[in-house]
Amino acid sequence: MDNVSHKLQDFFETHLPITDYMGLAVHEYDGQSLSLKAPLAPNINDKGTAFGGSLYNACVMACWGFAYLKTIEANIEGNQVVAGGSIKYKGPVDGDYIAVCENPSDEVVQHFIDGFKRHGKGRITLKSTIMCNGRVAVEFEGVYAVLASSHQ
Amino acid sequence: MDNVSHKLQDFFETHLPITDYMGLAVHEYDGQSLSLKAPLAPNINDKGTAFGGSLYNACVMACWGFAYLKTIEANIEGNQVVAGGSIKYKGPVDGDYIAVCENPSDEVVQHFIDGFKRHGKGRITLKSTIMCNGRVAVEFEGVYAVLASSHQ
Repeated sequence: MDNVSHKLQDFFETHLPITDYMGLAVHEYDGQSLSLKAPLAPNINDKGTAFGGSLYNACVMACWGFAYLKTIEANIEGNQVVAGGSIKYKGPVDGDYIAVCENPSDEVVQHFIDGFKRHGKGRITLKSTIMCNGRVAVEFEGVYAVLASSHQ
Repeated sequence: MDNVSHKLQDFFETHLPITDYMGLAVHEYDGQSLSLKAPLAPNINDKGTAFGGSLYNACVMACWGFAYLKTIEANIEGNQVVAGGSIKYKGPVDGDYIAVCENPSDEVVQHFIDGFKRHGKGRITLKSTIMCNGRVAVEFEGVYAVLASSHQ
């Protein structure tokens, strides 16, 4: 499989200036899992740990990016949006951090792609996590939609 | 009532560098409602509207800030954290934006303050919204805790 993760990095650099401020960048992608990394310094809070909003941004974009790369692999060009998200902060993140979105299942991804191809609208729920010192520090779940241009 | 909102602005400038990047600042506070404002430009996405993560950051901090100002008014010094949040994106935000947190009720706020005073831990659920062109574009709900230093 051609690794398309550079297209997500390009997207960040072209379209999302806050990712440059945050230092948010593609870490790894192997088709089954996408991880994004960010340094602590620009994302720090009053406690010397990562700001909850910056943790959310990494999580929401790990899932967004996973869905985006799946559409690229399927040769889909659409307008992809996040419809909602929920996050639990289970512990502090005291250093540079990595948000990981795992493939929920090939069937779920295929349903997302098929929805777009058949109806001009695909929808998918994805989860991401941030680990710190061997424990899950952040759990995120988001709902994403990809729409044909005529739906915009 | 002494307006303590400058203490939240000071907090942003001292402790949360990402708010400087975002241009996130206190807009209004009257004891019943706190609003934060942010310009579109640093928070823009590929569609020319506000990035979902930046909308989250404004919402999560509007509620955080409301709770923070209530602790200051009650002469409490604690460590305040966000435990979780959920957000719904109902429509795009196509310009500068304002996130508003309304007082849920005086009883809910008093319970939060009393919890801290009696048990060293107060907990509160708060909501915030972002309007755009006369409609609710973003709905957020977050859970916050303020802990005595000994609980950290």
